[in-house]
Amino acid sequence: MTNRVKELVAEMTVEEKAGLCSGLDFWHLKGIERLGIPSIMVTDGPHGLRKQSEGADHLGINDSVPATCFPSAVGLASTWDLELIQEVGVALGKECQAENVAVLLGPGANMKRSPLCGRNFEYFSEDPFLSSRLATSHMKGVQSQGVGTSLKHFAANNQEHRRMSTDAIIDERTLREIYLASFEDAVKEAKPWTVMCAYNKVNGTYASENERLLTTILRDEWGFDGFVVSDWGAVNERVDALKAGLELEMPASNGLGDNKIIAAVKDGTLSEETLNTAVERVLAIILLAEENNVENAHYDKEDHHKLARKVAAEGTVLLKNEDSILPLSKSANLAVIGQFAKKPRFQGGGSSHINPTKLDDAVEELQKLSNGATITFAEGYEVKQDEPNDALVQEAVTNAQDADAAILFVGLPDHFESEGYDREHLNIPRSHLELIHAVSAVQPNVVVVLSNGSPIVMPWLDEVKGVVEAYLGGQAVGGAIADVLYGEANPSGRLAETFPEVLSHNPSYLNFPGEGDQVEYKEGIFIGYRYYDAKKIAPLFPFGYGLSYTDFAYSDLVVSQKEIEDTGTVDVSVTVTNVGDVFGKEVVQLYVRVTASSVVRPDKELKGFDKVALEPGESKRVTFTLDKRSFAYYSTVLGDWHVESGEFDILIGKSSAEIVQEGTVHVTSTVALPMTVTRNTPAGDILANPTLAPIFEKWMAEMNQDSPFANMSEDDESYEMFQAMMRYMPLRALVAFNSQKMTETHMEQLIAELNGAVVAK
Amino acid sequence: MTNRVKELVAEMTVEEKAGLCSGLDFWHLKGIERLGIPSIMVTDGPHGLRKQSEGADHLGINDSVPATCFPSAVGLASTWDLELIQEVGVALGKECQAENVAVLLGPGANMKRSPLCGRNFEYFSEDPFLSSRLATSHMKGVQSQGVGTSLKHFAANNQEHRRMSTDAIIDERTLREIYLASFEDAVKEAKPWTVMCAYNKVNGTYASENERLLTTILRDEWGFDGFVVSDWGAVNERVDALKAGLELEMPASNGLGDNKIIAAVKDGTLSEETLNTAVERVLAIILLAEENNVENAHYDKEDHHKLARKVAAEGTVLLKNEDSILPLSKSANLAVIGQFAKKPRFQGGGSSHINPTKLDDAVEELQKLSNGATITFAEGYEVKQDEPNDALVQEAVTNAQDADAAILFVGLPDHFESEGYDREHLNIPRSHLELIHAVSAVQPNVVVVLSNGSPIVMPWLDEVKGVVEAYLGGQAVGGAIADVLYGEANPSGRLAETFPEVLSHNPSYLNFPGEGDQVEYKEGIFIGYRYYDAKKIAPLFPFGYGLSYTDFAYSDLVVSQKEIEDTGTVDVSVTVTNVGDVFGKEVVQLYVRVTASSVVRPDKELKGFDKVALEPGESKRVTFTLDKRSFAYYSTVLGDWHVESGEFDILIGKSSAEIVQEGTVHVTSTVALPMTVTRNTPAGDILANPTLAPIFEKWMAEMNQDSPFANMSEDDESYEMFQAMMRYMPLRALVAFNSQKMTETHMEQLIAELNGAVVAK
Repeated sequence: MTNRVKELVAEMTVEEKAGLCSGLDFWHLKGIERLGIPSIMVTDGPHGLRKQSEGADHLGINDSVPATCFPSAVGLASTWDLELIQEVGVALGKECQAENVAVLLGPGANMKRSPLCGRNFEYFSEDPFLSSRLATSHMKGVQSQGVGTSLKHFAANNQEHRRMSTDAIIDERTLREIYLASFEDAVKEAKPWTVMCAYNKVNGTYASENERLLTTILRDEWGFDGFVVSDWGAVNERVDALKAGLELEMPASNGLGDNKIIAAVKDGTLSEETLNTAVERVLAIILLAEENNVENAHYDKEDHHKLARKVAAEGTVLLKNEDSILPLSKSANLAVIGQFAKKPRFQGGGSSHINPTKLDDAVEELQKLSNGATITFAEGYEVKQDEPNDALVQEAVTNAQDADAAILFVGLPDHFESEGYDREHLNIPRSHLELIHAVSAVQPNVVVVLSNGSPIVMPWLDEVKGVVEAYLGGQAVGGAIADVLYGEANPSGRLAETFPEVLSHNPSYLNFPGEGDQVEYKEGIFIGYRYYDAKKIAPLFPFGYGLSYTDFAYSDLVVSQKEIEDTGTVDVSVTVTNVGDVFGKEVVQLYVRVTASSVVRPDKELKGFDKVALEPGESKRVTFTLDKRSFAYYSTVLGDWHVESGEFDILIGKSSAEIVQEGTVHVTSTVALPMTVTRNTPAGDILANPTLAPIFEKWMAEMNQDSPFANMSEDDESYEMFQAMMRYMPLRALVAFNSQKMTETHMEQLIAELNGAVVAK
Repeated sequence: MTNRVKELVAEMTVEEKAGLCSGLDFWHLKGIERLGIPSIMVTDGPHGLRKQSEGADHLGINDSVPATCFPSAVGLASTWDLELIQEVGVALGKECQAENVAVLLGPGANMKRSPLCGRNFEYFSEDPFLSSRLATSHMKGVQSQGVGTSLKHFAANNQEHRRMSTDAIIDERTLREIYLASFEDAVKEAKPWTVMCAYNKVNGTYASENERLLTTILRDEWGFDGFVVSDWGAVNERVDALKAGLELEMPASNGLGDNKIIAAVKDGTLSEETLNTAVERVLAIILLAEENNVENAHYDKEDHHKLARKVAAEGTVLLKNEDSILPLSKSANLAVIGQFAKKPRFQGGGSSHINPTKLDDAVEELQKLSNGATITFAEGYEVKQDEPNDALVQEAVTNAQDADAAILFVGLPDHFESEGYDREHLNIPRSHLELIHAVSAVQPNVVVVLSNGSPIVMPWLDEVKGVVEAYLGGQAVGGAIADVLYGEANPSGRLAETFPEVLSHNPSYLNFPGEGDQVEYKEGIFIGYRYYDAKKIAPLFPFGYGLSYTDFAYSDLVVSQKEIEDTGTVDVSVTVTNVGDVFGKEVVQLYVRVTASSVVRPDKELKGFDKVALEPGESKRVTFTLDKRSFAYYSTVLGDWHVESGEFDILIGKSSAEIVQEGTVHVTSTVALPMTVTRNTPAGDILANPTLAPIFEKWMAEMNQDSPFANMSEDDESYEMFQAMMRYMPLRALVAFNSQKMTETHMEQLIAELNGAVVAK
């Protein structure tokens, strides 16, 4: 803390201190005029500003000032482009400065545990490594402009269903490897000004009162030094929250929380030191915001719209392209069908809902780029009607019959997915579904363009030649789709999530959204592709998947060392070549596979990725550096990340399901897991320990000389069984079975000797 | 307790009492000569007697006196024939009387959680209802002969891996609905003389020291009144075990346990009353055995062998019968291939390993039944060699080329599955696999006969026309197979377990056999077909599946009432007709499906079955009675079985995957689940309660008159979100968002009023 912070806090009354621990209103922190402390503003995000002009609420209902609507997190994520996302962050930061906003509330680093989560469009991925890298880039961009971010929702807010009361039961290893890992690197590397705590409980304690999360892990382990803000309304008991490490309650609860803090200080149940520390943290950020405030800042709306269009195109995922139906000829006559073409679904509902500066119309954008083509438009369906409208379908069919190709804009309407509630199925409305059937029946050249924030099932996939996943692509998505359809942009998006064949294949299916106020993450670390891989269940489209208008070849994988210690690093290089005819970008994905392990581990995990732009015929060499964390699992025995000595496969993939290059490295652990022998330790565990085995074998030899098994040979029918029985037999049972020769006193002596040997070593 | 028991115990010294709480040796209980208490014998089972003549052990290594080896539990189970299994039980009881054995150790009612469990062949099913019914019949049969049984291994011993030290972590509902349910009805209905506790821990406590299992549930809830015996070597701390309800330690630990009991009584840490109770229970069974002992009993070995042959045929499951290749013509020339044909694998390894009275040779039995056919035999593989032997394969191929059909006897050798260790994959040895490939390549008419105790994968399934699952069919399996192949017996076995397409599809796959000494049953209630159904993963062969040489038609399902209360019963009747040309038996299966539930439930559950014998053209009407338990789940809130009011589908199936008749019944609950309102109760929960809703609505109306949402209509874009936010918002957050109008004091008053209304109602 700077001296100025300390000095200011020293001058405050308890009432002023408590006041700084909650908002002034929905979107402002309190200032203290007499001390020259300004009131700063925070604003919803994170893919655009939602600065409300009046009638503040946290539901996205009231209008906000116009701002550039970039693609939602799902669209940003599918770019897999760290530089581009940072560029978006910079643009967002500039808009914040222009609107005098000190902190942009986001991005979200929650995991896509289930495709049903209504807020998935605001999250990046089902993979914590990818999610964390993307969040880092976003925040670096925003904060480079002197504007803070609020990494959210910390932690385990992976559903909307009963989000304010549900208790996420997650085992420690899963929490560390998946749900916290998505935040960990982002906190360490991007150093967000603030972190927003989640509504839900985590393992029995509200995130807002979870000292282990907010202080032990976030601050002590990860070095976070900003302040923690509650999600809007997430505070349960204000004093408990403050003690746990939640500095700022939002929104203002009209003094309810402040009064509790004041009372607690007065009756001694809250130390003033704790309050001071909280206030210092809040104040430090207020002063940082003040210091970084740019007077009269502005931004170029057109530039930002262009950037939004570029990002939307880069995040578009080409899922199917039979007979190379795409890109379309600019002179082909097109039947554009579906209300989403003219009234795009370009963002999700809730706190991230933006009032865009402008909004592209895909039909107009196609017309602009086309060359002498007739482009018709038919609504096809009514957005608010799930049931088909026969007249609209008939109009679409007629148009489709007369065209060279039909472009169908379908997906999920607003009321299908939103902040606040989860989906219950993965279907598109019947009005969209029947439209696809009807148009496909008369037109062989159908391209489906999807607008949705999270996976859908596609029972119609075989009926169409092309599928373009545009996600919720922001205000320029109409233009971006035109670019992609005509090949002005070569789609280079890759799925940051698995599309399942059916909902029931999702790993969380039997445990989502939980029962009553408890949701158990029984699938553990097997989220997303980790599950589909391990269970050998083929998804509709795998994690990392996406087609291109060109082709890429991989060659010359080199792993820099055959063997490393877990304290070292190893470099992995591979050459990627554009072997097609047009410029394109490839996402090179590096996965690590453990070949043997004493704990259950995923088949493979993403540990590196790089997006490479290549002209036709061009090659580039991509290099990744892997370190301990690339090979480690979280050991609950150690309370730390741990690598078991052994062989690891290094896999280079075009997706999680298409591995194109393989190498190996042997990693040797420098850390031994602790072992304590008890009366219930199985003999096999002792025999597997090189230090303990000789001591134990001597003891066994003395004991078993008269045993019926003593002279058993490998040829005996029961040999394997005997070996297994011995391996699994605890010491106390060996004694019980041999108690004519051995007493429990002997056993205690042996245990002491064995544990002594462990320590001695 | 009888007076005699009480009187005898009163005369005993503490040392004598302690002595009665452990064995005399491996297979005998102690007697007390001066009191005229005999030493009775217990013997391994349960599909035959393993009475050891000398060198007692618990590993099945030393020879035992000859006894009839009936099919293992897996083979008994696949008969789905309660009367037949009872008949086997009667035969086993007679053999015990003849051998002066007082208690037969078995049957096993553990669940087949994973096909990998090495001891699955000793267990009945993956379905607790089926398992419990079958165990009941078995025990009723044995005990009808004045011989006791020992229902084992209580509880949650569903793997061999680290079975003496592993801790099975199972949630309460899963324990009740699956793992305990398999024991529950059997204990209640068959009243076993003894129950054998398992080696493992259950939720942190050794089964042998688990008072909740051994006393609270087994005795207090289920009314068990025999004694609990430890699995051999399962006692950890003898005194803790005694206090928990484990009366008899086996085998003798040479006084180790007895001495601890004596010391504990003397130092006051164990009350003599507790010891007395234990001794009374042991003594009561000793006297019961004495009373029921039949002098000079004998049994007819040939009769029992014939019964074994009948049962083996009834339990044989016809898995595939393309082009009706089976039954074989008795004049067709056959190439019988595979060592198992002459040296059958007819039982599993370990404590259930029998010394059979005789042993059928399938080749000889086929020859006896054939009519002018040439039947050759080729070994095909060496049983102890997993790698193919080219010369043996070549001989088999040559024989197959010259025959009309090839009958391949393959499966799992002894060293692939046994008590003591689990499998790690579901493959048959490569020597068997390559043999199938080689023979199928030259002979289009191939029938595979399988000998195995648990499912295997069948990548070769498309290469052969017939597959006969003979399981571990006992000493007469060779004859039974001949009967089935020639149509002397029409196979009527049905799978009591799912055969997965690949191992990874099994529900326990990611959590079996656990890590270190902990195995978490994370799949919960979704064991077996409950999982494949819910996850929509198609198995290789579903639960309940099996073909016949005839066909059956179903008609006229009648559900006796449209609506019942959960205290009532409902009858379900259906007509089954043999519409084929030969006599056959059909297993009519009744499943119940919940159509809506607030807790996660399986898609359907087996709640009735009946095996019906039908001549060609014959029809029979089958009736089932369903009661509360048929519709209930175990509510952890109530601590009891509970039916949620609603519609239930009644499904009649030929297997779990082939439903042929459907009906419905509405069940109305007579029990309300308790509800307590707290500051964190979501508004939607209160509004969903008819008693509480009006009170709450009045309060809300007062509070929200100025709210921005007050006048929101269904047409508003954010209407659904608002509805969801309100539904999930806890009372304390409503206060925080409206604290200008409402204080926490008001909230406390409201909570008091709401909870008062719940009680008042």
